[in-house]
Amino acid sequence: MLSKNQIKLITSLQQKKYRKQYQLFLAEGIKVIEELLRSKYELQSLFVTEPLDFKVSTDKIHTISPAELKKISALTTPNNCLAVFKIPTEHFSLKEGLIVGLDDVRDPGNLGTIIRLCDWFGVEQLVCSPETVDIYNPKVVQATMGSIGRVAVLYTDLVPFLKTTSLPVFGTFMDGENIYKQDLPTNAILIMGNEANGISNEVAQCITSKLAIPRFGQLQQTESLNVATATAIILSEFKRNF
Amino acid sequence: MLSKNQIKLITSLQQKKYRKQYQLFLAEGIKVIEELLRSKYELQSLFVTEPLDFKVSTDKIHTISPAELKKISALTTPNNCLAVFKIPTEHFSLKEGLIVGLDDVRDPGNLGTIIRLCDWFGVEQLVCSPETVDIYNPKVVQATMGSIGRVAVLYTDLVPFLKTTSLPVFGTFMDGENIYKQDLPTNAILIMGNEANGISNEVAQCITSKLAIPRFGQLQQTESLNVATATAIILSEFKRNF
Repeated sequence: MLSKNQIKLITSLQQKKYRKQYQLFLAEGIKVIEELLRSKYELQSLFVTEPLDFKVSTDKIHTISPAELKKISALTTPNNCLAVFKIPTEHFSLKEGLIVGLDDVRDPGNLGTIIRLCDWFGVEQLVCSPETVDIYNPKVVQATMGSIGRVAVLYTDLVPFLKTTSLPVFGTFMDGENIYKQDLPTNAILIMGNEANGISNEVAQCITSKLAIPRFGQLQQTESLNVATATAIILSEFKRNF
Repeated sequence: MLSKNQIKLITSLQQKKYRKQYQLFLAEGIKVIEELLRSKYELQSLFVTEPLDFKVSTDKIHTISPAELKKISALTTPNNCLAVFKIPTEHFSLKEGLIVGLDDVRDPGNLGTIIRLCDWFGVEQLVCSPETVDIYNPKVVQATMGSIGRVAVLYTDLVPFLKTTSLPVFGTFMDGENIYKQDLPTNAILIMGNEANGISNEVAQCITSKLAIPRFGQLQQTESLNVATATAIILSEFKRNF
């Protein structure tokens, strides 16, 4: 049985303000929770509506009713389990390889999909502008399918960050060079822009190599690709020759 | 001012059954409506909350209040316009080029994104299994950003369809050949599978070339790519050498 205070605390974690205050975040569903348990995250508590085979000390598992789960879930159609994890203190230190930088990506589904893509393509570092949606937003956590634990994320102003790097900085623009004809380096930063406005002018000035994904449609009317699908194509190009 | 019957009719179009009965579908937002007006679709009526610059005969435009728009909108946050379009009678005849086939893709956002990708990469033909989400579902229409008008779509059982073709049939599988090392043909069918189950066994037996997108993540734990991002990478590979 959940107390009113527990319900209030857990539902408050749908808001960034309270995630920051309590340093906790939500994850739902067996697959996502199992992935997080396997990675760097420390479980605070686990709520289940039926006996489930999680390898977790029993004092952290609480059996609740489906009606109670519905109260604390951030999903329209809740699963059979919800976990509260601690937000770790990140020590972000730049390593070799490809780094993805996000300039105000606002949609949680897009950020989650991009994290999943980073994990697939072995990109271990993600740098987000402060206006990019919070990685611990429940919709982001769900969309990552648990891969969030394998990508290090830093929130920082992109311009000062890019000014201190000697790495080539790539971004996509309408007038960029055909990505299919480039020799792409192993160590680089790839900037992806906001859903509506693309890469901001300030950040664009730090880009050293402008890329474009060519269009093939006969009518050439499609305005742009979704940021997550564009990231998929570009990461594939960066990695396909290795 | 909207009558009760108008509200009932328009909101009923959120359901496939009524879209089929009335042969009408919904589109919202200036960008999507403008794209559809420019393509093969015939407008039935257009509802706006403010004067907007659409090139449409005035007897089809109805000014309504934001409260009325909220009643008829399928969006959580309605725009300033909603259009009702007629579903055209499609005459689907196979043409040369790449054809994408969807085996029970259920998520409207995924289908919409795939249609947008088809448009970008010049894929003009999409064949969907009967269990694939309806292209005139409002969430699909929104996610296509209007590109729905430039891709011909046929709903049919994939197995008989694939059995009558002499084209090579591609699909992605865990044990497929590295897509980056293949010579991919201009004329082919590419099958993408269901979000949870991938390509069904029956359809898999019609696949003539199994492909795989290699993983680069060190831990190799990422289970799969989202179907829309996988489609992005594969279409890019099919088209990059042209």
